[in-house]
Amino acid sequence: MHSLRIVVVNPDAIDDGASDPAFEAQAERGKALRIGLLQAGYNIIASLPADLYLPERIAQLQPDMIIVDAESDARDVLEHVVIATRDARRPIVLFTEDAKKSSMEAAMAAGVSAYVVAGLQAERIKPVLEVALARFNQEQKLRTELSDTKLKLAERKIVERAKGLLMQRHNMSEQDAYQKLRRLAMDKNLKLAEVAQRIIDAADLLG
Amino acid sequence: MHSLRIVVVNPDAIDDGASDPAFEAQAERGKALRIGLLQAGYNIIASLPADLYLPERIAQLQPDMIIVDAESDARDVLEHVVIATRDARRPIVLFTEDAKKSSMEAAMAAGVSAYVVAGLQAERIKPVLEVALARFNQEQKLRTELSDTKLKLAERKIVERAKGLLMQRHNMSEQDAYQKLRRLAMDKNLKLAEVAQRIIDAADLLG
Repeated sequence: MHSLRIVVVNPDAIDDGASDPAFEAQAERGKALRIGLLQAGYNIIASLPADLYLPERIAQLQPDMIIVDAESDARDVLEHVVIATRDARRPIVLFTEDAKKSSMEAAMAAGVSAYVVAGLQAERIKPVLEVALARFNQEQKLRTELSDTKLKLAERKIVERAKGLLMQRHNMSEQDAYQKLRRLAMDKNLKLAEVAQRIIDAADLLG
Repeated sequence: MHSLRIVVVNPDAIDDGASDPAFEAQAERGKALRIGLLQAGYNIIASLPADLYLPERIAQLQPDMIIVDAESDARDVLEHVVIATRDARRPIVLFTEDAKKSSMEAAMAAGVSAYVVAGLQAERIKPVLEVALARFNQEQKLRTELSDTKLKLAERKIVERAKGLLMQRHNMSEQDAYQKLRRLAMDKNLKLAEVAQRIIDAADLLG
């Protein structure tokens, strides 16, 4: 197995040169996390701020996992990451100190694979990441099943509607109408639902 | 908010009187977990072994959450708990030392809401349980959406099939067939899919 390619995302902190305790605490967390990841044998391919360029960078890098390290303003960072992975979901692990129920619920709804409060000990990182990966795969299965079923339902509606049109207009039996749809689909090298949609469109045009 | 009613499930260890180190280690873990739960303000309503009576006891107790504490043989214990919550899903949190990938995957497939390796520190218990609860609720939503969509698809197939039968037998338009189904459903106080199934059954009988 190749080692997991990880992108770490931090809040977009600005080092203004002055000694800002919040900035320093976040930098300290970031360091501890990176050491833990490296010790556990993971491959940190990038460490990025949560800014407007994040979607583009993640699309380029195609990481196996995204780790968000945000002591407090996890919600803002997470929002950026969710937008950046909307089209190609990836496991997201969040390390935070934010134990608010509303933050947890928002993170779950956004599809976070692990929400780890106060758990940035190096020795725990590996099992947490492995559980997150297993969870992500399981949830992807469930999501795929859901979108497949929804698609089937939508296609079914279209096919049945086209079948009904054929039956009514040409006084065909259900089976004959279905056979006609299938033949058209094969002839035109289209999916059954695509042919059905064309028939519905044509009927709408002809009135 | 009422405090969470928790059932703790342990491996079915047998205290044979002799000093068995595995038994003592598990007993020690169990104690630490219970102290952590009580300190975090949770209500432990029962502590049960993973035996044949577990399904019955869980059905009686109706806990808000089930915590499995199993240093090593988590898989066996989990199997019992999954069977015991098959009909009424509940959040399951697993504390274990078993970091095998196959064990993690099996636990995810079984619907475990949190799989915590080496994480039995008292101060971490509360956020872990709260994240598990949020995750469980989110997954229940996804599961409900999936089963609703599957049901719709199945019902749709039945209704469309019955509609096709009516259209063919009575030379009806699609709309008329649908209206007839709706009227029958209303008259008999049945769901559309139930009336449709009766029409299909009748057609099968009549040939």
